[in-house]
Amino acid sequence: MISGRCAACRYLRRRCPSDCIFAPYFPPNNPQRFASVHRIYGASNVARMLQQLPFYLRAQAADTLYYEAERRIGDPIYGCVGVISRLHEKIYETECELAKARTDIALVNGFAS
Amino acid sequence: MISGRCAACRYLRRRCPSDCIFAPYFPPNNPQRFASVHRIYGASNVARMLQQLPFYLRAQAADTLYYEAERRIGDPIYGCVGVISRLHEKIYETECELAKARTDIALVNGFAS
Repeated sequence: MISGRCAACRYLRRRCPSDCIFAPYFPPNNPQRFASVHRIYGASNVARMLQQLPFYLRAQAADTLYYEAERRIGDPIYGCVGVISRLHEKIYETECELAKARTDIALVNGFAS
Repeated sequence: MISGRCAACRYLRRRCPSDCIFAPYFPPNNPQRFASVHRIYGASNVARMLQQLPFYLRAQAADTLYYEAERRIGDPIYGCVGVISRLHEKIYETECELAKARTDIALVNGFAS
């Protein structure tokens, strides 16, 4: 049975206050979500980062903190930077293919004129 | 004058031990580097993440933690995920241009045959 406490308060073994900073973003049915951000940032840093934002932006911040925590857990050396490096490589490869295709077009147009 | 303590120990106002986990990656001439990772992850989390890696991988982990901390400070809602989103957009745009160029080539080849 899931208690009324949010995942963070369950993890931290504390009462979940009515104005809990974590509760809207860490529901009790997803304990892994809080465990991940806790492991990388710590509860107090996550709370502070959420508190510094207006309410309507906190859900997105919690999502991106969770994403980054998961990447860091999966790749403790590079974290999100590993993802960013692979995307830069992909852009480079695609731009090379595009340059080659445009050269082919220029050559065909050269022959055609 | 820069003291012999590393940037982390200066920041934390403590003695810098000879086997300091931070010293190789947070030199005293760059106090901002430690201030940034401290702000996002906290000193104990950074120390733990470095300690869990073999020595030869710690410098890269410190670099990527610093990069991610800087992105989160600059963009408290999206952090590195903002960078990743923009790179995905760039890949999509480049792939669209490539598809268009290849269509042009196919059309030219169709006319030529």
